[in-house]
Amino acid sequence: MKTEVVAGIDIGGTNTRIGLVDKNGVILFSENTSTHAYDTPEKFVKDAARILREGVEKTGTSLIGIGVGAPSANYYSGSIEFAPNMPWKGIVPLAELISKEMQINCKLTNDAKAAALGELLFGDAKFLRDFVVITLGTGLGSGFVVNGEVMYGHDGFAGELGHVIIEHNGRLCGCGRKGCLETYVSATGIVNTAKEWLEFEGEKSELKNVSIDQVTGRLITEAARRGDLFALRLMDFTAEKLAFALANMVAVTSPSHIFLYGGLAKAGDLLLNPAKKYFDEYILRNYKGKVELKLSGLPDNVAVLGAAALGWEEAKR
Amino acid sequence: MKTEVVAGIDIGGTNTRIGLVDKNGVILFSENTSTHAYDTPEKFVKDAARILREGVEKTGTSLIGIGVGAPSANYYSGSIEFAPNMPWKGIVPLAELISKEMQINCKLTNDAKAAALGELLFGDAKFLRDFVVITLGTGLGSGFVVNGEVMYGHDGFAGELGHVIIEHNGRLCGCGRKGCLETYVSATGIVNTAKEWLEFEGEKSELKNVSIDQVTGRLITEAARRGDLFALRLMDFTAEKLAFALANMVAVTSPSHIFLYGGLAKAGDLLLNPAKKYFDEYILRNYKGKVELKLSGLPDNVAVLGAAALGWEEAKR
Repeated sequence: MKTEVVAGIDIGGTNTRIGLVDKNGVILFSENTSTHAYDTPEKFVKDAARILREGVEKTGTSLIGIGVGAPSANYYSGSIEFAPNMPWKGIVPLAELISKEMQINCKLTNDAKAAALGELLFGDAKFLRDFVVITLGTGLGSGFVVNGEVMYGHDGFAGELGHVIIEHNGRLCGCGRKGCLETYVSATGIVNTAKEWLEFEGEKSELKNVSIDQVTGRLITEAARRGDLFALRLMDFTAEKLAFALANMVAVTSPSHIFLYGGLAKAGDLLLNPAKKYFDEYILRNYKGKVELKLSGLPDNVAVLGAAALGWEEAKR
Repeated sequence: MKTEVVAGIDIGGTNTRIGLVDKNGVILFSENTSTHAYDTPEKFVKDAARILREGVEKTGTSLIGIGVGAPSANYYSGSIEFAPNMPWKGIVPLAELISKEMQINCKLTNDAKAAALGELLFGDAKFLRDFVVITLGTGLGSGFVVNGEVMYGHDGFAGELGHVIIEHNGRLCGCGRKGCLETYVSATGIVNTAKEWLEFEGEKSELKNVSIDQVTGRLITEAARRGDLFALRLMDFTAEKLAFALANMVAVTSPSHIFLYGGLAKAGDLLLNPAKKYFDEYILRNYKGKVELKLSGLPDNVAVLGAAALGWEEAKR
């Protein structure tokens, strides 16, 4: 008998990872593709299906379910709805499109909720009941576990922490409002800060060696790692905004742990240390010293594993 | 056989209500006392015990449990911890003090969580799974129900929405930090706004007929009800701050309903209508039109009922 696998698809604003995962959480096949390469969801689904079929053939497995994590995705409706950082606009019934194409049940959730599920099943959060995963990618996502269960909210849209407003009349956000957390704290956010500062300040930085349009989160992280003071100030500024929002969030759900995950979290201690310092300053006395802010210990594919876990849940019903 | 009852004690920053509640949620006895009349928790417990014993004698009932709701109270530890608006400072092991005095099991929770439990068991929230109760009293409390259960957080302190910071370097809060929601949105908050404005503005208002130290939330509400433009502006200002914080909170837990409860909520539509208007302006598109912001339909004693429900839970174990 062929080994049964479930597909875990982690759709980011920039990249998509597609994996085949067995019931022990082992990834048997994995491939990346660029989310922006597909101008319609239909084209994306066609190509994802091709990759999945190739993977199934290569591994000689039997595909019995599909789980997808994506920004602004709704667990209840199976749709991506008004995702500010995605190439596909409006309401996209992605679970239905994939189910039809593959003739297999597909379950969709928010990418950060998938990451939280991955942490709960395979990561440091295995025995935790109240924690949060913050994904720092193109945008900022969050997945909450409350009383040991993923919090979906009444409509499936709990955990849009990236769209908490932290600055009155702040930066314009993809959602149409101003001052949202993710306009400051995300790969895009830190790049925007860099651009603002590089334009107006006479400061020295190795980032000035590239054209302003070529500055990326990765370049900033690398410069900071080499001790570039400008890049370190960018990290400090970003960490302060993150810590402020997290301290406010703790006053709502009171988690024991906050895990940082995603591209910008790769800055590691360069981001984490100042974030911890400000977090401790901002947090209400009742919570002081109780909430652990740390980097996710899981590799990049935690969201693929989480998405697959969702697929397994559905396949076993 | 005597009718079994449970005591529900709702401790507010200003007043305390003590009730005896049967298992159908009928209040058989109720008495109020001033929280500030007792400079130590021990004196409070002695007097509350006296009131309870008198109530039990009067009603000829049998007291089998006690539930208490109080600001900054912790469900897990049974203590009130660093309550900014209470006469008793530090960590007060209130459940233990009451249990010892009455020789009956006592369970403690946050006053707003007690109100949420009251709404869930006896109010409009009977069939809801994700909702929030906001208590607008001396301070601002909040009780969250997530997936049909009260959210306590890992340490019992979930739902301190009054201490979400909404203004950088804003008003000094009892918690020692600056800009907390409750410094603007609470009976104390709206009075502080009135005082600030009355000092610096040449505006006409019937509130000028009393000395500035005598302005209360109730006087402001009454003036607004009579069409006093200054009082109406105070309501609008307060409603805007509330709506801003609620819109941000929705992006975390995504509740279907938000119930306003407590002294300041008695302003009714004078507060609710502007709050709804701003809430709709501030909220992320995904939630628009989905979240009902309304006044609690329950009478003042919902927190007593909720506290009693907690006592019943404990008594029946």
